[in-house]
Amino acid sequence: HAAMSQPLIGKLAIYGVGLIGGSFALALKAAGAVGKVVGQGRSRANLDLALEAGAIDAVARDDRDAVADADLVLLAMPVGQMAPVMRRIAPWLGAHTVVTDAGSTKRDVIALASEHLHASAARFVPAHPIAGAERSGAGAARAELFRDRHLILTPIAGNDPQAVALVRRAWEIAGMRVSSMDAQRHDEVLAAVSHLPHVLSYALVHELAGRADAEHLFALAAGGFRDFTRIAGSSPEMWRDICVSNRDLILEELARYRAEIERLAALLQAADGAGLEALFSAARAARNRWLQIR
Amino acid sequence: HAAMSQPLIGKLAIYGVGLIGGSFALALKAAGAVGKVVGQGRSRANLDLALEAGAIDAVARDDRDAVADADLVLLAMPVGQMAPVMRRIAPWLGAHTVVTDAGSTKRDVIALASEHLHASAARFVPAHPIAGAERSGAGAARAELFRDRHLILTPIAGNDPQAVALVRRAWEIAGMRVSSMDAQRHDEVLAAVSHLPHVLSYALVHELAGRADAEHLFALAAGGFRDFTRIAGSSPEMWRDICVSNRDLILEELARYRAEIERLAALLQAADGAGLEALFSAARAARNRWLQIR
Repeated sequence: HAAMSQPLIGKLAIYGVGLIGGSFALALKAAGAVGKVVGQGRSRANLDLALEAGAIDAVARDDRDAVADADLVLLAMPVGQMAPVMRRIAPWLGAHTVVTDAGSTKRDVIALASEHLHASAARFVPAHPIAGAERSGAGAARAELFRDRHLILTPIAGNDPQAVALVRRAWEIAGMRVSSMDAQRHDEVLAAVSHLPHVLSYALVHELAGRADAEHLFALAAGGFRDFTRIAGSSPEMWRDICVSNRDLILEELARYRAEIERLAALLQAADGAGLEALFSAARAARNRWLQIR
Repeated sequence: HAAMSQPLIGKLAIYGVGLIGGSFALALKAAGAVGKVVGQGRSRANLDLALEAGAIDAVARDDRDAVADADLVLLAMPVGQMAPVMRRIAPWLGAHTVVTDAGSTKRDVIALASEHLHASAARFVPAHPIAGAERSGAGAARAELFRDRHLILTPIAGNDPQAVALVRRAWEIAGMRVSSMDAQRHDEVLAAVSHLPHVLSYALVHELAGRADAEHLFALAAGGFRDFTRIAGSSPEMWRDICVSNRDLILEELARYRAEIERLAALLQAADGAGLEALFSAARAARNRWLQIR
């Protein structure tokens, strides 16, 4: 994108300038789509990192300073911190300020916004950029993080259409493929393809690490183990919040998964080579189709 | 390694010139540690690929031609084909010919060798190079595949020490870190850190692929899903054989894992954020320690 004479967003405020918030700022800056970026967050050290990386131009003095004249406010901290931050900013939000978030769960964030954002609730546009990594913090931020990844908007009834359009445009400029669905469906899909695998990966590492011979086991683990457990390196705090928030749907997914591994255990018990090979072949074929279309 | 005037292995015969067999040949050739390499296998097309890649110098006319004057025979096909191949080669093995394998399970291969290799059983040295990949076939072979990876020898009572030394030396020349343990322990460790993750990864993809909305689910799967399911791209035939062969120990691992995810489900049910975070943190810390020492 060429630099624009009039940036899309005059002032952007980011709460939680980590991997996602920092990368969003860097991407919009690289595209000339933002004037000034201010940051807020729990960790001064992380905000200093964000300043050094050029993700933010200043640390806001307080919430009023951050959001009063902002065109867009991005809430990019773990979902567990959404409620207090929404309560703090609600009194200071400008009449035209649009608020969006980057949370991995959407039903809960929508409920919180409806409870805490009062007059600004119609300009709250829930969104989920699907672009994580085990790394976190401003030091991991990079302008290219979102390139060709999916962003899901889950607009709410009564959303200001201009607010939705602004958020959509901003993420498109950051390089994302934007689509919309309702929050319930979002949370179901993510429970299946993201939350469940994370939980399963953490469970495997935790179970092995608790054994007396863990060191010997890990010493002989290889590339397959490394790939399978990569997501067990993700932020425990973020995944705690996702799991608590989306626990009903994650429990449904876990129940389906447990039924699947019981079927698999029955094939093993019966030494059913043909059945095992059919299952493995179907899985491989499905994964290969996925790799070709994505 | 500089080329040796007298190669360690005058003639090497490889049954199953795929990723492992082909890479072994290429590694020994690169080190000047082998004179002539002949190949045998089910697929003429794959043997032609191996010839083109320079992994083998010739396709053996028959089993006698392959093994009669070989110094080393590597059995590098799926474990399910071990028995017929052992039966076929046993009558033709030379009095000094050493036989080794690259199977992912060891108790079964040892039992087969004891049953089928007769006079040559003392010169059968079971080994497992832990260096797989989803890719398979001679086209994927490369001399560097084994560099700094683990090779486990599981010598048997009555093994000819010179045979064990030859196999150890050959894999060391291929770049591997060689250690020894008994076959039972090998199969236990691999069930935990390799066979279980493969089975879990296949199960996840299979369960999702069978749903009516599979396409939509896969469309929104991201990098974490890709990593977690990478091993579900592995050879179904190879994993069928591993699972059938090692099913008792894999079932034990599955039982432990199911208990772990039941504990995790209880934490979710109770919305126990502190308990979930403690589990995730312990897993991440264990994985990070592993990444630092490996």
